[in-house]
Amino acid sequence: MIQINAHYLKLKASYLFSEIAKRVEAYQQQHPDAPVIRLGIGDVTRALPDACIHAFHQAIDEMAEDRSFRGYGPEEGYAFLREAIAENDFKARGADIGADEIFVSDGAKCDTGNIQEIFDINTRIAIPDPVYPAYLDTNVMAGRTGAYHDGRYEGIVYLNGNAENGFIPDLPAEPVDLIYLCFPNNPTGATITKDQLKQWVDYAAANKAIILFDAAYEAFIRDDSLPHSIYEIDGARDVAIEFRSFSKTAGFTGTRCAYTVVPKSLMAYTATGEAHSVHGLWNRRHSTKFNGVSYPVQRAAEAVYSTAGKAQMQELVNYYMENAALIRKEMQALGHTLIGGENSPYIWVATGADSWSFFDMLLENAGVVCTPGAGFGTCGEGYIRISAFNSHENVTAAMSRIRQALKS
Amino acid sequence: MIQINAHYLKLKASYLFSEIAKRVEAYQQQHPDAPVIRLGIGDVTRALPDACIHAFHQAIDEMAEDRSFRGYGPEEGYAFLREAIAENDFKARGADIGADEIFVSDGAKCDTGNIQEIFDINTRIAIPDPVYPAYLDTNVMAGRTGAYHDGRYEGIVYLNGNAENGFIPDLPAEPVDLIYLCFPNNPTGATITKDQLKQWVDYAAANKAIILFDAAYEAFIRDDSLPHSIYEIDGARDVAIEFRSFSKTAGFTGTRCAYTVVPKSLMAYTATGEAHSVHGLWNRRHSTKFNGVSYPVQRAAEAVYSTAGKAQMQELVNYYMENAALIRKEMQALGHTLIGGENSPYIWVATGADSWSFFDMLLENAGVVCTPGAGFGTCGEGYIRISAFNSHENVTAAMSRIRQALKS
Repeated sequence: MIQINAHYLKLKASYLFSEIAKRVEAYQQQHPDAPVIRLGIGDVTRALPDACIHAFHQAIDEMAEDRSFRGYGPEEGYAFLREAIAENDFKARGADIGADEIFVSDGAKCDTGNIQEIFDINTRIAIPDPVYPAYLDTNVMAGRTGAYHDGRYEGIVYLNGNAENGFIPDLPAEPVDLIYLCFPNNPTGATITKDQLKQWVDYAAANKAIILFDAAYEAFIRDDSLPHSIYEIDGARDVAIEFRSFSKTAGFTGTRCAYTVVPKSLMAYTATGEAHSVHGLWNRRHSTKFNGVSYPVQRAAEAVYSTAGKAQMQELVNYYMENAALIRKEMQALGHTLIGGENSPYIWVATGADSWSFFDMLLENAGVVCTPGAGFGTCGEGYIRISAFNSHENVTAAMSRIRQALKS
Repeated sequence: MIQINAHYLKLKASYLFSEIAKRVEAYQQQHPDAPVIRLGIGDVTRALPDACIHAFHQAIDEMAEDRSFRGYGPEEGYAFLREAIAENDFKARGADIGADEIFVSDGAKCDTGNIQEIFDINTRIAIPDPVYPAYLDTNVMAGRTGAYHDGRYEGIVYLNGNAENGFIPDLPAEPVDLIYLCFPNNPTGATITKDQLKQWVDYAAANKAIILFDAAYEAFIRDDSLPHSIYEIDGARDVAIEFRSFSKTAGFTGTRCAYTVVPKSLMAYTATGEAHSVHGLWNRRHSTKFNGVSYPVQRAAEAVYSTAGKAQMQELVNYYMENAALIRKEMQALGHTLIGGENSPYIWVATGADSWSFFDMLLENAGVVCTPGAGFGTCGEGYIRISAFNSHENVTAAMSRIRQALKS
């Protein structure tokens, strides 16, 4: 008899974003003439940069001729893209990362979800709260947790974020092996300083732990003193894997391209302490279960690093950051405490009520969709996340509606 | 201390295709002026069909304007593609598969590798020999096998293919829960009749087993009596998952699009026998660890089902099948027993010597790269796989070189 992976039964029945979609749909059926404005899911809304469009078309023209056609590419990505990444995203910032340490993929969601496979089933996992749900769910599926109750899974070391620590969790009190960190943070928009990040790198080095650093939102950093990459921190090459994406920075959510950095000096161990290259393990995983990113998509991603592409990407980021500034200003004027939105596209707002009630109230009274903080973990209760990914017109209209709703 | 997934250490050190690449590189360094002809890796060589190119460009133009831009799409694929697939690949052949049972992905390699995750770790697995290595490797990584020795992993039920059974394995003698089948077969090119496939479906139904049916090469079937899909067999909806790909049929190896069919009536069980929908499990896995296929790529794949697209795809398939016919004729004329190449792009040739020696001899004396059968399992020893994916010119030249080499 074929048996299921019973760990799946531990998963909370409803995924955050499907629950939101359900409530929005119900609202729209009751109010067919009241269009909602979505500041919920962190999805970009503006067209791909011209430089990417141009490169994309050009690559498709290559695929139209036998002599320039490309079949299977290297699973880890074409050298042209890996070299552009290493040069621009790392070496230019003084981070010592080589092109051969970069694995191009079709999404940071896939990579952050798949990475746990190469580690032992009994790995002690530290995960922030609030957090992007996929880190947790993929470890539940793998069987690294016990049951779910009171908003938490047994067997996970939760790193609490709250108003007191500014949503920068403290170092874990008990020993852990694998630590998920995300800065600029999703969902809170919190950022980490180099000094703070150095403490995590030192902790990992002292404990032979590995940090999984999700930097999908680094392009939104405005404060020059903040690190864009964990590899700007001394010693990080020996303790960290970094995840990046073109999704939010260059509008690739529907085009799909991302990458993961696994330094060759990063080691993990057998039970008897024998060191193995994590790069080698990930390479084996990646080449066995993945067949590379679409060639034209890789050419479009490469164009992000052209002179025109850089300027266009910056313009896109600036556009969304103007929205973020407006959201911050308006919500503060309404008396809400908040963080984020200065170096990140997310604004994390204290609601003064429980998250889902505030979500429902905003939907019902303002026709605006946000994300309830409680959906990101127990520490998210009492907060909502507002996303800056929308048009100026929609964000302005949403803020005006929210003003009306909250004042009435 | 962070520990590795020790199951990775059981994997054979060298992946088949990397070993081939190493030997070809060594040969080329010694013979810089003798260009090799590659009939090894099954990669297509001809341009994408015009209909796909046209749709691809058009979709990119949509991504260039805010008003038609697409961000995150549905993880399971856009309805336009899923509906075209259900209509053309299934309903048109009398197979009762709905659009909502289709999960679009970026590759059959990913799907056939990932599918095992949703089943129990103690699942008894039956895998053919010879076989596409990824089925086996992904189960090794997951920890479903013991050690590797004498060419086989402990804990796997191997289904032997050989000259006696025409490389259609017999039903397993011991009980199994999950069965990998691939027809038209990679690497042997063997095909299965409806009556033969019905025996497997009946076996699975009787044993509450699930069949993982890899039909990536169905477009190469010429014999109208052969099934293109397992769902042409009565009862298969309740026992089978099918994998398909646009890679070989429409030249998408570098463009990346595939799909997996999980019928809603397919069940797997808890240890106590409670039935769960496999569709629900796969949906959860797919939406947690994957973020959908690039929108323009899905539009290009949809175009395969247009009138022009169908004709162009057929022309591509015919082109490669002319190569297959030539390879068959030439190798038979040289006195080799073979199968495949009539309803598949692969020709499986008895070498009369061990596989790697014959591989080395063809490389050294003819400058032609094939794939040694032993790389696909112990039952592949004594065979090579020749691929029809190349230009007529190259295949003709390769056959002429092989003729010279084998006659001398």
